[in-house]
Amino acid sequence: MTATAKPLSASGTPAIPTTDAFPLAGWLEQARPETLQGLLAEASGSKVLTFALGLPPTEFFPQEAFARATAELFQRDLEALQLGAPFHPLKRHIAELMRLRGVECAEEEIFLTSGAQQALSLAAGLFLEHGGSVLLEETSYLGFHHVIKPHNPRLVTVPTSFDQGIDIEAVEAVLAKGERPAVMYAMSEGHNPLGVSLSPAKRARLAELARHYRVPLIEDDPYGFLQYDESLPPPIRALEKRWVFYAGSLSKVLSPSLRIGWLLAPPELHSRLSILRQSMDIDSSNLAQKAATSYLESGHLPAHLTALRRELKARRDAMLAALERHIPAGCRWSRPSSGVFVWLELPSQMDATELLRVALREEKVIFVPGAEFRCGGAPTLGRNCMRLSFSNLNPEQIEEGITRLARAIQRLS
Amino acid sequence: MTATAKPLSASGTPAIPTTDAFPLAGWLEQARPETLQGLLAEASGSKVLTFALGLPPTEFFPQEAFARATAELFQRDLEALQLGAPFHPLKRHIAELMRLRGVECAEEEIFLTSGAQQALSLAAGLFLEHGGSVLLEETSYLGFHHVIKPHNPRLVTVPTSFDQGIDIEAVEAVLAKGERPAVMYAMSEGHNPLGVSLSPAKRARLAELARHYRVPLIEDDPYGFLQYDESLPPPIRALEKRWVFYAGSLSKVLSPSLRIGWLLAPPELHSRLSILRQSMDIDSSNLAQKAATSYLESGHLPAHLTALRRELKARRDAMLAALERHIPAGCRWSRPSSGVFVWLELPSQMDATELLRVALREEKVIFVPGAEFRCGGAPTLGRNCMRLSFSNLNPEQIEEGITRLARAIQRLS
Repeated sequence: MTATAKPLSASGTPAIPTTDAFPLAGWLEQARPETLQGLLAEASGSKVLTFALGLPPTEFFPQEAFARATAELFQRDLEALQLGAPFHPLKRHIAELMRLRGVECAEEEIFLTSGAQQALSLAAGLFLEHGGSVLLEETSYLGFHHVIKPHNPRLVTVPTSFDQGIDIEAVEAVLAKGERPAVMYAMSEGHNPLGVSLSPAKRARLAELARHYRVPLIEDDPYGFLQYDESLPPPIRALEKRWVFYAGSLSKVLSPSLRIGWLLAPPELHSRLSILRQSMDIDSSNLAQKAATSYLESGHLPAHLTALRRELKARRDAMLAALERHIPAGCRWSRPSSGVFVWLELPSQMDATELLRVALREEKVIFVPGAEFRCGGAPTLGRNCMRLSFSNLNPEQIEEGITRLARAIQRLS
Repeated sequence: MTATAKPLSASGTPAIPTTDAFPLAGWLEQARPETLQGLLAEASGSKVLTFALGLPPTEFFPQEAFARATAELFQRDLEALQLGAPFHPLKRHIAELMRLRGVECAEEEIFLTSGAQQALSLAAGLFLEHGGSVLLEETSYLGFHHVIKPHNPRLVTVPTSFDQGIDIEAVEAVLAKGERPAVMYAMSEGHNPLGVSLSPAKRARLAELARHYRVPLIEDDPYGFLQYDESLPPPIRALEKRWVFYAGSLSKVLSPSLRIGWLLAPPELHSRLSILRQSMDIDSSNLAQKAATSYLESGHLPAHLTALRRELKARRDAMLAALERHIPAGCRWSRPSSGVFVWLELPSQMDATELLRVALREEKVIFVPGAEFRCGGAPTLGRNCMRLSFSNLNPEQIEEGITRLARAIQRLS
């Protein structure tokens, strides 16, 4: 609502609204009601098998070691409950983790955040003006869409696929034609929702394009440490230090409940990031940062990570084998080498949202319909697709869940 | 920068920037460099006595009881490290706390946040459009200013004072003239930075104005549980359920490091609040919520709160007595009945920012100059004022600090 659109009273001043309806901000008024959320809520706590959530497996959290580390912290540090500056020793551990990912970064480049989501929000907020443009894939992480929505952005979308990932020629064409997005957004590993990882050539080209056109590229890498096959190429940030803003997280490898993430950004921008952050929540939990550091200092992470990767690899393999065995002909799916998602394409005439209703009611199995991730492209994009997460169920449950899913598909065919 | 402002290349497409400067969002580009932050950083870790920070006293954190509660949590709850929905049992405890504040609220009205700052950010974000207007006091909480800045707001300010608080006639005149701010902002207890608490009549009038004009009022109440004299009147929210959005916090009474706050808002708006929240950080730390709940269930909070109030009252009394004893004639200050701040007015020709330099270098004592809190009014507003916090130093340190401050004032006179 603009001031001129408001009704005037007889005296010429704006009238007082006559109903008790809240005058919500426009973009929020129009925000799509989350029917999916309702469906997922319906499924929670029941005997439904869920491929919908990409959470790390609860039974693999290092809770005992973490509890010990926290107890030690409380004994040692009398300021554990006090507010404090972003905890420096945690940055040292993150710099080490980044080195394992093939990224050299100084501690001064690490800006600690409340999860990777906040890192995305801060990176976008640095550059995105109200109504500005954002370049991203037609099928992309819903959470990034949530991040930019309040800015009322103009979306410039490029094609993508579950076997190749972002269409780099399309990105190049858009930029060459003169489009200057405020930011570009990409995932190099374990794409959410497509499950694809980018080839080294694509990573190199994205880095070059960001550098050449001086357009900030936000690289979202929550799954970078979850790799199952041969060792993977380093992320795009390893190839371009200035124009690539890398978002990392402990959520998928240690605990999502800690809300520990980070953004790699040139130190000259950190004071701006702090200003932006003041508009959200001032600061992260110092206690969570210190507890995580205490755990990292105990030296348990490498063994934990190895065990976690082994288990997730087994779950991925179980899902791929089950899909092969049970899913009817005419379907295609991704074969992820990292992350927690498989993208499944049904025959083109099928509607995955319709399938979800049948799958939930008749077979007690759920997933996220592909249309939920659509940011552009044809209106029907993703309609016959779904995202399946293999991280939440053990191999036996995965086998059972895919059997149920296959039955649901046959019911609807 | 708008698209049309961009330089074009010979071919007519926008030119690629020729420098490596980052194309920051406009409001952020113009954000004032935080010189004060630099000064405060200079002071940290040294032998400087600080009246600058309103932190709870570290030595009064219930760390032992909290450590026990956390250890119990880890033994009992195998999902302590997993992501989870906002933790319901915590809401039950918050509803009880609100009852102690004289506010009846249903658990369904409580939206959990990462500290009160996020509650303010969410409440403002519900209603504030890009370029929309906000009604607030000329001297107000800096953090709220940070919250609204990214929206590029038009500020509609009203006078306020350390002995009376917000000028309610001015608020009424603004609304009667036809101004329809997206939100209004007020603190009823322990105003930051003025230290004033509002009279019951002012609270009632603010509730009426919000209701009558249907303008959402954000009531910021982090200090509501820190009361030192007779029992205080309930907050504005107790008088108006629909149009008052109340922000509360455990930061000042339990631990700021947990980042646990809440917003009281009609349940019909919670799905919108969730959408807004997705743009920031998805969710709070489930671990922090569960650990806090475990502590609250141990039943230690009432005794802790009594001890904390007693100590802070002693510190307030020490500061008021020291001001009386040492501060030269021609100065005036507030006598807070709640919160952690005293507002001190120097003789009108003095400049508190200049005084701060002298105080830091010559006397090793610091405070926040009043001009930092100015949101409107005359350009010189707050220039001869300062905010003194009495929560961080013990009574002996307060006596010493005020002695030093008095010497600094005399040096500059």
